[in-house]
Amino acid sequence: MAMIDHPTQLERTLLESIPLARAMGLSVLDYDGNRLALTAPLAANVNDKGCAFGGSMVSLMTLAAWGLINLKLGEAGLDADVYVADSAISYLEPVWEALIAEACAEPGQDWAVFVHDFNQHGKARITIAVEINSVQGAGVACKMFARFVAKRGEF
Amino acid sequence: MAMIDHPTQLERTLLESIPLARAMGLSVLDYDGNRLALTAPLAANVNDKGCAFGGSMVSLMTLAAWGLINLKLGEAGLDADVYVADSAISYLEPVWEALIAEACAEPGQDWAVFVHDFNQHGKARITIAVEINSVQGAGVACKMFARFVAKRGEF
Repeated sequence: MAMIDHPTQLERTLLESIPLARAMGLSVLDYDGNRLALTAPLAANVNDKGCAFGGSMVSLMTLAAWGLINLKLGEAGLDADVYVADSAISYLEPVWEALIAEACAEPGQDWAVFVHDFNQHGKARITIAVEINSVQGAGVACKMFARFVAKRGEF
Repeated sequence: MAMIDHPTQLERTLLESIPLARAMGLSVLDYDGNRLALTAPLAANVNDKGCAFGGSMVSLMTLAAWGLINLKLGEAGLDADVYVADSAISYLEPVWEALIAEACAEPGQDWAVFVHDFNQHGKARITIAVEINSVQGAGVACKMFARFVAKRGEF
C-alpha cells in the first residue's frame, strides 16, 4: 500500500479499499497531528432501536486508530502494513446522532519510540485509545483500547 | 421489537433494521438450539490488504451473539431489548474467505438461569463467546467474548 501522509489521502484510501467504510459513509473530520477524528452519519449506521449499531461504532473506532497510526508513520516517511491485534470495548451509552470517533495514543505510549522501533526492527507495537462521545448524553458513549502492530511492507 | 423465535425471522429482522448488516451481505447459516452461525461474503467485507476487515468481523460476531440471545428469549416466549455492554476481541489470523461467525454461551453460563433472571427481574446478563474460523489457516482466526444485557421492552 502507498504511504499515507495526509488526512485527505487517508480518507480516499479508506473509501477506495474498504467497502464497509463506503457503506458507513465515513469521512475524516479533523486531525491535529496527535488526534484523528472520523465521522459517519447515523442513518447508515443505525440498529433496530434507532440508535448507533455497535458494529458501526467498533468499525469507526478501529479505522480511526488504524488511520492515526498510518498518518504518524507516513509523516516519518515510512510505509507499513498496520494490523489490529486485540481490542477491548465498553459500550456506555446509546448514541442517537452522527458518530464521531476520536483516536490518540494511549497515555504512556510514545510515537518517537514507536517510529524508532519500526526503523530498528521493521516492526513496532502501539496501543491506541478511541472514544465516541454522546452529544445528548453525559460524555463518553463508547470507548476502545486497541493494540496494533506495524510491519514493514513486502515489496 | 417483535419477538424473534426463528432463525429465518432473525435474518429478516437484521437485514430490515440494520443497514450495515445489508451492506455486509449477512445471512443465517445454521442454528442448532445452542449455537448460531452467521455468514457474510468476503467481497463486501474486505480491507486494504484483501482479507477480512476487522470491523466486519466484529460486526458479524456481535450480531451472532445478539441473535443467539434473541432466539433463546424468543423460544422462551419472551420479548426483550438486548444490548452489548462490553467485549474483548483477539485477532489471531487474517481471513481470506467468506466469514462464518459462530456464537454460543460462554462455558459456565446457563440459559435457564438467564431466562429465570429475566422473568424474575425483567433484566438478565449473559456472556457469549464467538469465533470466526479460518479454513485456510489453523483454526480460530478471531475470537470475542461479549457481555450482554437483556431488558424487558417498553410497551
